Order: sequence, then C-alpha cells, then structure tokens
Amino acid sequence: MATAPWTRRHILSLADFQPEEYDTVLQTAASFQEVLSRRTKKVPALQGQVVANLFFEPSTRTRSSFELAAKRLSADTLNFAPGTSSLTKGETILDTAKTYLAMGTDIMVVRHREAGVPHAIAEEMDRLQSRVGVFNAGDGQHEHPSQALLDLFTLCTLLDPEKPRLSLLNGKKIAIVGDILHSRVARSNIWSLTASGAEVHLAGPPTLLPKLFADFVQTKSAALNRQLVLHWSLEPALQDADFVMTLRLQKERMTNHLLPSLREYHQRFGLTHERIKLCRPEVKVLHPGPVNRGVEISSELMDDPQISLISQQVTSGIAVRMALLYLMGSGKQKEES
Amino acid sequence: MATAPWTRRHILSLADFQPEEYDTVLQTAASFQEVLSRRTKKVPALQGQVVANLFFEPSTRTRSSFELAAKRLSADTLNFAPGTSSLTKGETILDTAKTYLAMGTDIMVVRHREAGVPHAIAEEMDRLQSRVGVFNAGDGQHEHPSQALLDLFTLCTLLDPEKPRLSLLNGKKIAIVGDILHSRVARSNIWSLTASGAEVHLAGPPTLLPKLFADFVQTKSAALNRQLVLHWSLEPALQDADFVMTLRLQKERMTNHLLPSLREYHQRFGLTHERIKLCRPEVKVLHPGPVNRGVEISSELMDDPQISLISQQVTSGIAVRMALLYLMGSGKQKEES
Amino acid sequence: MATAPWTRRHILSLADFQPEEYDTVLQTAASFQEVLSRRTKKVPALQGQVVANLFFEPSTRTRSSFELAAKRLSADTLNFAPGTSSLTKGETILDTAKTYLAMGTDIMVVRHREAGVPHAIAEEMDRLQSRVGVFNAGDGQHEHPSQALLDLFTLCTLLDPEKPRLSLLNGKKIAIVGDILHSRVARSNIWSLTASGAEVHLAGPPTLLPKLFADFVQTKSAALNRQLVLHWSLEPALQDADFVMTLRLQKERMTNHLLPSLREYHQRFGLTHERIKLCRPEVKVLHPGPVNRGVEISSELMDDPQISLISQQVTSGIAVRMALLYLMGSGKQKEES
Repeated sequence: MATAPWTRRHILSLADFQPEEYDTVLQTAASFQEVLSRRTKKVPALQGQVVANLFFEPSTRTRSSFELAAKRLSADTLNFAPGTSSLTKGETILDTAKTYLAMGTDIMVVRHREAGVPHAIAEEMDRLQSRVGVFNAGDGQHEHPSQALLDLFTLCTLLDPEKPRLSLLNGKKIAIVGDILHSRVARSNIWSLTASGAEVHLAGPPTLLPKLFADFVQTKSAALNRQLVLHWSLEPALQDADFVMTLRLQKERMTNHLLPSLREYHQRFGLTHERIKLCRPEVKVLHPGPVNRGVEISSELMDDPQISLISQQVTSGIAVRMALLYLMGSGKQKEES
Repeated sequence: MATAPWTRRHILSLADFQPEEYDTVLQTAASFQEVLSRRTKKVPALQGQVVANLFFEPSTRTRSSFELAAKRLSADTLNFAPGTSSLTKGETILDTAKTYLAMGTDIMVVRHREAGVPHAIAEEMDRLQSRVGVFNAGDGQHEHPSQALLDLFTLCTLLDPEKPRLSLLNGKKIAIVGDILHSRVARSNIWSLTASGAEVHLAGPPTLLPKLFADFVQTKSAALNRQLVLHWSLEPALQDADFVMTLRLQKERMTNHLLPSLREYHQRFGLTHERIKLCRPEVKVLHPGPVNRGVEISSELMDDPQISLISQQVTSGIAVRMALLYLMGSGKQKEES
Repeated sequence: MATAPWTRRHILSLADFQPEEYDTVLQTAASFQEVLSRRTKKVPALQGQVVANLFFEPSTRTRSSFELAAKRLSADTLNFAPGTSSLTKGETILDTAKTYLAMGTDIMVVRHREAGVPHAIAEEMDRLQSRVGVFNAGDGQHEHPSQALLDLFTLCTLLDPEKPRLSLLNGKKIAIVGDILHSRVARSNIWSLTASGAEVHLAGPPTLLPKLFADFVQTKSAALNRQLVLHWSLEPALQDADFVMTLRLQKERMTNHLLPSLREYHQRFGLTHERIKLCRPEVKVLHPGPVNRGVEISSELMDDPQISLISQQVTSGIAVRMALLYLMGSGKQKEES
C-alpha cells in the first residue's frame, strides 16, 4: 500500500488531519512495528539528528516512550528537566525553545500544562524560518495527538494487523468514559475517531462533560456532531459498544468539588467485567495510563488480557512515535535536498 | 577456561548461586576488564537492546555504573526518575514495570527501599511470559548482588588477575565491620564469601549485629554457620585477617538511638592504619562507598593506595555489571533462537 | 592554516592561555562548525570515550550544550544530578570525582557554585596520575572559559568566517556591561579579549564593579591594565564600541541591597536601540543567556537579528565545546600512543 507524501512539519493537533495522513501514520507505524519484532530493533533513519524532549510538565512514562522511539531511529536525544532549568531563572518558554533551536535541535517534543504552548513554539520556529518540527506531547486540556494516534493504531492493527487503516473503524461504536471535559486525550481521540466514521459516545458525570459540543471541539460541523453522542450515565454508552476507552481521573477534581468521592465515581462510571456485559461480546477496553486501579476500571478487568488493550497501547506508542518522528524528519530532508 | 552455560534470567539474590555461576561471572568480567583496557571500550553485545534503570530509591553512583556498563555493551538506556514519575500519580510499582515491559525493555535494573520489590517484578515478568531479565540493584536491607560480585571480583583478580575464580578465597579470613544488621551489602557478601570457603568474621556494636544467624541469613546450614563468626568488638575480627570490608554507616542509626555518636563509633569500629596492624601484613581494605570519612575508616587509610581497594571496587563494578548484563542478555538470545 | 599541537590536559581558566592556543581553538571550532552544516552532524572522534557532566550547580542549558557536543563527537555521556546524589549522603566532591574516575571517565565537565572546585578536582586527578581532563563549566564567580571562548568564536567568525583568529579583534572597542564584580563570564572574557589586543570597557553600577583591577583580574600587568577601562555609567563605554556584551543580572543582588530596583537598573544600564546609537553603526550585542528581558536588554533589541548575536552564541557553543573536548581527548590519545 503506497503512502501519501508527508508534508506536515509539526504534529500539534488532529483537528485538521486528513484521512490520508492518518493512513500514512498507520502504515508507517506498522512497518516500524515489524522492525521492533526483529532482534536488532534500530534503524538509522534519524542518525545525527537531535530530538529534544522539552517536558515543562514532567512525565517519565511519556518522555521515556518518546526517548526510546527517537533512540530506535538512531537520533541523539536531549532531555530538558524543568526543575533544574533556566525557567527558574526567569527565562521565557520561547527563549528556552530558541536556545534549543540554536544548539541544532531538529525536533522538539513539547509537553506543557498550558494549552497552546507547543503551537506558540511552532509559530516562533516558523517565524524564524527554522526547519525545526514541533511535536505536541500534551498541552494542558487541549490535545495529545500521539496518544490518540497510538490508540487508533492499537484498534486498527487489532482489526487488520497487516493493513491498518482508518476506514476499519467506520461504523464502529466507541465509548469514551470519564472526565471528558478536562481530557486532552479525549479531545484528540474525538478528532481521529470521528474522522474514521466511528460513532463516538461520551459518558461521564455532568460536571465532567462539556456543556456544548460546539464549544468543546471547536467545530460546527453537523456531520461531526451527528457522530458524537453525549450521556450522563454509563449504560447507554456501553450498550453494544465495540470499544471502550476509559480516561484517567485526576484526583484534583475531587478537591475542586467536581466529584463526590472516588468510591462513588467507581460505582457509577468504573468499568468492570459485570458492566461491560452490555457491550458487544468481543469488546476491548483501552486506558491511556497511568491507571488508578479500582477507580476508572477494576483491577481484574485491567489485567484481563482478553479484554484490556492497555499493554498493547504502550507498545503501539513506540511504533507510532517512531513513525511520527520519522515522517517529520523525512519531510525535513526533502526540503533540504 | 571454559565457562558453564548461563541459565539464570534474573539476578535477584546470591542465596542460591552455584560455584560455577560465580566462576562464570568472574571469568566473563575478566574478559570485559580486558576490553576496558583497550582504546575503544565498547562491544556490540547488546546492540538494539534496552536497559531501563528503575531506581525508585535514587542513587547516582550505582545508576551511573549500570548506565555506563549498558552503554559499553551498546545497549540503549532509559532512566526512570522517581521524583517526576507516575508514582506520584498513584501508579503501582508493578504497573510501572509493566509499562516499561510494554515499551520493549529487555533488562530492568531495579533499586527500591523495600526488600523484595525486584523479586515481585521478576515474578510478574515471568507470569506474563515475558523474557525480561530483572536485576536487583539493591532492595531495602535484603540484597545487593552486584556489589558482592564486584567485591568478589576485586579480591579474586588481586589474587590471580588472569584467572579469577571462587576457590582463590578458600581458607582466607575476611572481616566485615559495621552495621551488619541493616546491610544488604553484608548480606550478599556473606553468600558469596562463604560459598568460596572463606572464613567470614562479622564485627559491630551489638545493636547493629543480627541476634541469630539462622534468622539473618535464612539458612540452617551447619557448614555455613561454621564459616561465620560473630564479634562484638573489632580486634578478634581483624586478627590475622586477609581482607577487611567496612560498611557504610547510615546516619539515621543515630537518630534511632542504635548508636551513641559518630565519634564513639569511630573509636570502637573505625578502621585506621594503627588498628589494621592486627591483620596480616598484606591486608587490603574494601568499602562499598560512599564513605563517611573519619567514621567507618580514617581518611589516611582510605587514601592509602597500598591498602585501600576502594577505587578498584568502582572499576570492577563496570566490568562485573557488563558481565552480568551480557550473561542475562545472551541467555535471552539463546531462548529466542 | 596549521594549528599548534595541543598540550593542555584541563580547561580551567583563560588566565594563562597563549595566543596560539586561542587560535587553535578557533580554527578547530571552525572545522566543527562545518561538520554541523552537513546532514550527518556526527564524527567518531571520541568514540568509546566517556564524558561525565558533574553539574553540582544545576544548569540545563549549559549541560545540554556540553552533552550535545560530546554526543556529536560520539562519546558516551553520564549526567550527575546533585539532587539525587551521594552528596546528600555526605560524600565529598573529590570522592565523587574519584568515583567517576574509577568508573573510567575520560573527561569531567564540572560546574560548581564555589570558585576553585574544578581546579581542585584537576589537581587531584593529576596527583593520582590519571589522564582525565577536567573542564571548568563555571565555578562560582571565578571563570567560565567555554563561554568566553564561544563569545570569542562568535566575534571572530563574524569578522572572518573562513579564518577566525584572535588578532581580528586587535584594536576593537568592546564594552562589557552589568554586574562585572560577580561575573565569571566577564572574568573569562577579560582574559581572552585583552589577549586579542582589544580595548575592553567595563560599565556598571559602582556596587557591581571591582574596586581595584589588580585584585579583580589578579594581574599587575601594566599592559593589561592599559587595555581595561572602568566606567560608572553606560555612555562612555558604548561610545564608538564595536561590540557590547551585556551580562545577566542575578536577581539576588537586589535582596543584597546592591541594587535599588530592576526598573532603575534598566533605565541606567539596560541596552536599547536608542542607547546603542552611541556605538559604531555596525555594532553587535551579545548576552550569555538566559536573558532577563527588559532588564539587561530590551526585548526589541534582543530579538533584532541585525544586531543581536545571542542565537549565534548558542550555536557557537556547540562547535567550541566540540573543539575543546576534541582537543582534550586528542591530547590524551597522544600520551597513550
């Protein structure tokens, strides 16, 4: 299957991703998945290039995934640690990014607790006519595109390991459960899943759901809205679902009085073997991790290899991030030559 | 000298190490020591493999040693930093380990302040039928096998640089001095040294010595007990000793009222040039580091290159950890082929 | 242009740097700058060698620069993180350094908040007859030689990109503005700039200027003193200047009552487009970073690519540090062979 040429310098949001871009990512990730099954799991694709992980919001898990993906492409990696950084000395975020640019960074992987920071860095990089690619590794409550793409890859390779493609999810019913309102994972997934033609059902307590879709996903597309359904209870979302994505519950929602207690949350929205009997028999469950066991999902269900795709998601993360870094890097080389 | 084939997937404890295993480690480390004397100190043995350092208890010194050993085998390394980790988000240790497994880690080097954590991770990895090897880099007051093996290598290469082997220590008198009760270093060393046929003399204040040997080393072997002698004072342990291992004193023992003062401790159990006159003339002194100068050992003795083996221990650490990572990795490859 | 053979094992201070040494560094850096313009930006010069970054004072920016320089020379790097280190366990700095020596470190890059620490480590390494090179990456208020050398390289390549050499600055007027008294950057720059034959004008508030030059630069050289001029106001320093170096203002100077307020400081010593009209028309401005925007320099001036050399300084940092690490490493190899 031939893939479309890659033209995107930055990976910031899935809002404007085109179907052929999703397919290129899926097929490239599939070919890296094959590399990862070999004894020597490295390719020289990004030899001599520098990937800087600018994690203003710390996350060992996601940073390790990006770092390993970069190393398996033979890139050199730099880790920016906020605690010991110039930020404490009053340097602005853009100045930090410009410093890493001037050092010769090729790709910046950026995580920040404020929405929009990766975009601002990308704009500045473009304004300076650099060829640096900026990769949004999670910005506030806005987007987390690589998480949604690894979720997509996990689902599509399950349905067709040889030829994962967006259209495989057409017509599937996918439930997303939990704190939709504050979730960058949900937001990015809504873009990719609706693009595939799936029906997306969002379920959560009213305080954790968006009031207006149009506000939430920043689109007025009627077609998109028809694919999105909102529920204040779990059952209608699970009914005949093909896949269920449950989201991490941030404990600070409780202190903010948006939630009564973890126990009550689990009783109403926690996934269990019992609950998912409402779904289709071959249902699979996803979670972006790290999991609060016994809150979003029961320990038993999380550890059930027949139903839980959580480990596969982590594994997909390496292949998908390799694919995205590779596509960003190869686009760059085309410009140069 | 041919070495026995390696069958051990994990390095967790020396309690059940066999003499031929010790000899394989010693001989493999000797061959890496030779590599380290060349201009290019790297070998491609673990090319493309991933070694993750999961140091739940921070230790730059030991982590650097493992990291450098892995890099000299051409492995890719990942460092897990507890301060910035998902653990603060409530993820369990086993879930952290499973995440690194799913990313494609081949060997996990685990340090934790609780005894048994590396074993628990190893059991989980086996239960999941992964081929990941788990390396105990120090668990609570339980074991620190690589430290004992590098001590063994330091002693055996001193006695025969060409052919270090366990039997070289047969009949030697070795004193271990200090806080035996709380020391994972002492515990692991007791296994290897008694296996060699050495006589091991433990000396320390009564509050820092085990009450019952059988409890301490979890064995009722009469043969083992005959090789272990306990002293409440330093002198009988040093008398005619071939080697003296002094242990790091944890300052918190004072706040726990197990010790009166550092000064009094040094007066009674601190090693000095004067004190070690009781030992054999060619005596050598070891310390696992970092040293509290003037507490466990006088600065003069620590810095005396004729007597102190402390630098050699650090150097041995690289060769021995390379050997162990290599043996774990090569055993893995045999399973695959 | 042939370069003089390199004989210096450590880079600690520029106080005794010879003109031919400056030229060797400049020419070697120029050749690495050329490497950095290629697609594959790595050379195998330090393959198998270990560069340990011992940053007792944290600095992500400078550490990243050294780390990337080392990686582009194909060295393996180790990062020592003070927060998680044995230092909290009471180990001395020299013992930490000796541990990294014993592990097989080839070059130690040392930053510490106390002046003289890199020198003390270098002396200890020599006393032990090791061949380790020690690189001062900033010690207290004493010196920061690689910063001054990258500033020098930035200026000289501007004047002659093909053949950067010390003599290009002969007769130039260079102003250094700000907290001269506490600045290791100023101190190192004074050595290199006066060596070039430039006229160096120091300007700052009286509380932040040295009282006596002889004390400050520890020299009684009349020739040197003739090249150094001191000003309590900005204007005479800027008048007809070819280059202006502004220094970072440490905020703690305010709490120490050495300065009234940031606003007043900016009014009197902050660089702006307006102010630098006093300089020669082709004037360029430098800053070691990170910048307090609107304090030492206006945001507009800092971001003006016609005048500000701040990005070039960061880029030069990689080439200059590659050159210095390479020269230290190659000197080492000559001794061995």
